[in-house]
Amino acid sequence: MSLFSLLLRGRSRPWLGLALLFASPVLMAATTPSASVESPGKILKVTLQVDGGTARYQVQRLGDAVVDASRLGFELRDGRLDRDFEITGSSTRAFDETWEQPWGERRLTRNHYNELTVSLRQTTGDKRRLDVVFRVFDDGVGFRYVFPQQPGLAEAIIDEELTEFAIAQPSTAWWIPAGEPIHYEYLYARTPLQEVPLAHTPITLRSDAGLHVAIHEAALVDYAGMWLRRTEGQRLRAQLSPSADGWKVRRALPFSTPWRTLQIADRAGGLVESDLILNLNEPNALGDVSWVKPSKYLGVWWSMHLDEESWATGRRHAATTAKTKKVIDFAAANGFRGVLVEGWNPGWHGNWVGNGYDFDFTRATPDFDIEALSAYGAKKGVHLVGHHETGCAIDHYEDQLGAALDLYARLGVDSFKTGYVCDDGQVDRRNPAGGPLLREWHDGQFMARHHLKVVQEAAARRLAVNPHEPIKDTGLRRTYPNWISREGARGMEYNAWGQPPNPPEHEVNLVFTRMLSGPMDYTPGVLSLKGRHGQAIPSTLARQLALYVVLYSPIQMAADLPVHYQQHLDAFQFIKDVAVDWEQTRVLDGEVGDFVTIVRRDRNSSDWFLGSITDEHGRVLPISLGFLEPGVRYRAEIYRDGDGADFRSNPFAFVRETREVTSADHLTLILGPGGGQAIRFKKGTEGINSN
Amino acid sequence: MSLFSLLLRGRSRPWLGLALLFASPVLMAATTPSASVESPGKILKVTLQVDGGTARYQVQRLGDAVVDASRLGFELRDGRLDRDFEITGSSTRAFDETWEQPWGERRLTRNHYNELTVSLRQTTGDKRRLDVVFRVFDDGVGFRYVFPQQPGLAEAIIDEELTEFAIAQPSTAWWIPAGEPIHYEYLYARTPLQEVPLAHTPITLRSDAGLHVAIHEAALVDYAGMWLRRTEGQRLRAQLSPSADGWKVRRALPFSTPWRTLQIADRAGGLVESDLILNLNEPNALGDVSWVKPSKYLGVWWSMHLDEESWATGRRHAATTAKTKKVIDFAAANGFRGVLVEGWNPGWHGNWVGNGYDFDFTRATPDFDIEALSAYGAKKGVHLVGHHETGCAIDHYEDQLGAALDLYARLGVDSFKTGYVCDDGQVDRRNPAGGPLLREWHDGQFMARHHLKVVQEAAARRLAVNPHEPIKDTGLRRTYPNWISREGARGMEYNAWGQPPNPPEHEVNLVFTRMLSGPMDYTPGVLSLKGRHGQAIPSTLARQLALYVVLYSPIQMAADLPVHYQQHLDAFQFIKDVAVDWEQTRVLDGEVGDFVTIVRRDRNSSDWFLGSITDEHGRVLPISLGFLEPGVRYRAEIYRDGDGADFRSNPFAFVRETREVTSADHLTLILGPGGGQAIRFKKGTEGINSN
Repeated sequence: MSLFSLLLRGRSRPWLGLALLFASPVLMAATTPSASVESPGKILKVTLQVDGGTARYQVQRLGDAVVDASRLGFELRDGRLDRDFEITGSSTRAFDETWEQPWGERRLTRNHYNELTVSLRQTTGDKRRLDVVFRVFDDGVGFRYVFPQQPGLAEAIIDEELTEFAIAQPSTAWWIPAGEPIHYEYLYARTPLQEVPLAHTPITLRSDAGLHVAIHEAALVDYAGMWLRRTEGQRLRAQLSPSADGWKVRRALPFSTPWRTLQIADRAGGLVESDLILNLNEPNALGDVSWVKPSKYLGVWWSMHLDEESWATGRRHAATTAKTKKVIDFAAANGFRGVLVEGWNPGWHGNWVGNGYDFDFTRATPDFDIEALSAYGAKKGVHLVGHHETGCAIDHYEDQLGAALDLYARLGVDSFKTGYVCDDGQVDRRNPAGGPLLREWHDGQFMARHHLKVVQEAAARRLAVNPHEPIKDTGLRRTYPNWISREGARGMEYNAWGQPPNPPEHEVNLVFTRMLSGPMDYTPGVLSLKGRHGQAIPSTLARQLALYVVLYSPIQMAADLPVHYQQHLDAFQFIKDVAVDWEQTRVLDGEVGDFVTIVRRDRNSSDWFLGSITDEHGRVLPISLGFLEPGVRYRAEIYRDGDGADFRSNPFAFVRETREVTSADHLTLILGPGGGQAIRFKKGTEGINSN
Repeated sequence: MSLFSLLLRGRSRPWLGLALLFASPVLMAATTPSASVESPGKILKVTLQVDGGTARYQVQRLGDAVVDASRLGFELRDGRLDRDFEITGSSTRAFDETWEQPWGERRLTRNHYNELTVSLRQTTGDKRRLDVVFRVFDDGVGFRYVFPQQPGLAEAIIDEELTEFAIAQPSTAWWIPAGEPIHYEYLYARTPLQEVPLAHTPITLRSDAGLHVAIHEAALVDYAGMWLRRTEGQRLRAQLSPSADGWKVRRALPFSTPWRTLQIADRAGGLVESDLILNLNEPNALGDVSWVKPSKYLGVWWSMHLDEESWATGRRHAATTAKTKKVIDFAAANGFRGVLVEGWNPGWHGNWVGNGYDFDFTRATPDFDIEALSAYGAKKGVHLVGHHETGCAIDHYEDQLGAALDLYARLGVDSFKTGYVCDDGQVDRRNPAGGPLLREWHDGQFMARHHLKVVQEAAARRLAVNPHEPIKDTGLRRTYPNWISREGARGMEYNAWGQPPNPPEHEVNLVFTRMLSGPMDYTPGVLSLKGRHGQAIPSTLARQLALYVVLYSPIQMAADLPVHYQQHLDAFQFIKDVAVDWEQTRVLDGEVGDFVTIVRRDRNSSDWFLGSITDEHGRVLPISLGFLEPGVRYRAEIYRDGDGADFRSNPFAFVRETREVTSADHLTLILGPGGGQAIRFKKGTEGINSN
């Protein structure tokens, strides 16, 4: 019970309810003892059953099986922990609180579940004990294992986790491959679930009957990331990310695993609106985090991806004092808080990729006067955004971490981006026994520890962190709100590089897959619609604006060059106006891989913002404005695809217009192929013209 | 041009706009002249092209092909009219009006299209002329052929219409078989489009990319109904319903064919919200139709389907004076306007099916005092609803039609149901040359004429008509608003008979297929949930109520026995309260074959009504109440599935509760498997209790 009290004594507020529901397992027969719990609205039901010594869970929803009987347990270095189980006890509790996000998709989040804890004990050998805790929400299920303190098992060496997810209904899956070199940066495959080999989470499923299920994990702390391998039919099994040591996870008891999560909704948008991942994380551990600033930023960045300038010093060096000053000026003139500078420090020579031992994080290159630029920015209300590319030399970076962060803290560089660009997807780790470097996966236990260490060191100095090529998001921003965003998917940079660029459906897919895990620093807003060597970006102009609403992040880059924004001042106005921190978020409509329309209310004003994007097909999407405050007139500032807009042939067809609307009105969004639409709804109607 | 002026001089009001857009065909090359037109919002584009003498049309939508090049033309008895064509002229016009339905899903309907007329002439033989007229709306396309007056072709004998529909995107189809004996009364098949053999319209398609298309026809007057035969791949071709004379259609020139229609929407609900079929029909031809009364009715009917009573006279005769009086009493006490009585007239002996020559429509059976009952009802504000079962003896019925309708008119029986129950799906027709009866299909030119004759004769006496086993609806209710409803699909009666009953997905399928053509007299509200011999009806209790909102008809039956309503007075209250005539209709959400949620505003009050039904899967459907009038408090009278409701195991789990809501609120509808939910939103909050 100590675990529960720990959880329930957390920082949640207001604390609304805790009640003992019923404490006895339903003992069905001598050979198949079981325990079960329903969600608060009696929509989902989870049952754990031990049959022949094997513990299996299943999930039902309104009479349908969602997850068929699926095995629980582990393969430990010194024995299987998935057999000879008996149930020694179980308990059920109800929990209902509403807590406040310091920043996020919505201010108030309800955490409402019924919890079932089942205590298992092996009947053989050391009679090892393992608890399984289920939290059953109306919109999904989280469960985790608890290894309680017990004689003869001071430390668990986990060779594999054996958790299964046997999806009951024939389903289509959207997924990216795991066990591959490129840190989550893939286009999403859409296949029958029964053709998935080995996938990362979140993996998103849609059954033939229209039920949407996403499998992921929450609170990945000091543990290996979970991949999903299909073992047969629609049965997936956990496969933990490896470590260089041979085992997958090594932990002293007692400890809990991350939560294994199933988000379940009839509408695709229901997955996006679910707060289950955040709710399964521990409350804010940092106290006052008012120093974490949701904001927009520009960068000394895109020019390097365009291959017009370079990270390394020399004639083409981007991060010079003079060039950065100009970007600071542009930021200040247009209301951006941040200016990211990459290539500001020594170490960017030719072979830095996967070989970051020459990076110095404690001083700038001679042509980049970081002290002067910080002071120059401060005068104008602009903060440099720091950058640490590790080249995957993890210990090397950790060695300098304290000094590097002290530098940033001193200069007012209150957020920074990290990078983990490896040559083969694996990072370098010093071998404590000496000898050649060890290689670790980017989402193994080693990197789970590393990322959290950086976040904690940053928090100690009131700095926010935005890792690229990161470990996946599992909702730890709730506990560490300075973990402000991350990459972890194929971002805008692929549109600079091409080979190929991101097709329009990719951004729609992101909403229903990657974005379920948390914010992404996608870096939208390339209004030139051009990548390297003039290559076309598969997007209309209006779509670039819609991405600011559709792809959530509390920090949003305006990724393009200032000179390009000056060429599209009408569209740029939306990027200047759009909020980044939200009071409320709703998915009006959407289908995985097809299109999505999201509305969000600014947390710092009464403005609403709408973003809608489609795949390579044009769409006609009628929407109701019922989300607006009733009885109030709004000015809708509409940025839409013009007649004939098409990402292939006519991407710049674009209309900016304003209309007076109320909550009783309807709009029909017309999106061209690869198109989008962005709208700001502002209270009051001054300045309305009816063009 | 006379055709246009004819159309545009019609009864439309207010008349908003007419403009010459551009009149010249786009001449692309000497060998492939073409003409094209876009919809008002530039969403759809239709192009007609003549290549090698063949005329083909295609439909594009926002850059995507929806219909690939598809042949136009006819096989006439004396020659092909689909080859050797040249374009002799074309013109384009814009049209925009808003007209008022006397009753319907919404009061005001906008009819907004651009029209393209292309004149074709054969270069060979008699140089025959054929015009094709396209009306291109933002939500679909209608086109028809015009046979202009011309030398050498006084009459067209059409052996086949050759119109093709080559669907461009890989699609799933929901369809029922044509050329089969049972007048449209099939469960809908869901197959790949490329597995459809021969189907009735409306046929509903969903592309893999999520585009919904429904193919149907509008204004089927003096012509044969169109079936669709798949000729190859996804190419469908018109196949007209046959006639006993060998040809399909015989018409004197000039004449126009019915409109061939394509409704096109991203959201499934967009098909349902489309008014295209009505817009393509001619305006009201009857003038004042205030005598057509949308209303609810009870019947001396369900007991016969339960096999507890009989249509025929004798001990089990249902239609007796005494029994009918009781139903009139129940109707009056509960606010129903009508009481349908079947079996009231002579002729219901054992072999009447398909053999209706003994029916007498001009007098009642001796135990049914129609004069007294009419008078009794009149005192209580209740009208008998007439009934004419023809047993498919069409001429026999037509012989008595005038007298039969005179009787009804005299007695205040101001609406009547007709029936065409045949033994093999074909009706009988006297052979003008003598000899055995001829057999006609229920949707051939003969029956198209017959049904319209009945409607016109009824209109002359201010009677409304509701045919069962009818010809399909093609929107003629716009022209003849006394054509108040019809059957034309598998209705509730199948749930009495079983073998098998209608599975839950059937009613969802109806919304997105059959209901696209117009109102259906489905006869919902069987609260006993029992058919013949106690057989279970696949529905929860709440679902029976939802059907009143979901399945549109301006006349709605409460099909169950009064004694059963007395056993479910809480649920019956909704049937008493629900409106039947609507100011406005919106599909909040839905997927073909899965679920649907519809809201409608009463035309005679400020009440809104919501109906939601699902297939065999439970659903959790969050909805916004933004459709309500802003700033007003409503009492939501909720009739929903109770915990654990399931059409298989727990159909009577049912909750009636009230809540106070506004347009800013959200509700989550929880539907059990085979379940539903019905809500009345009433302005003001008196009587709210928070149970």
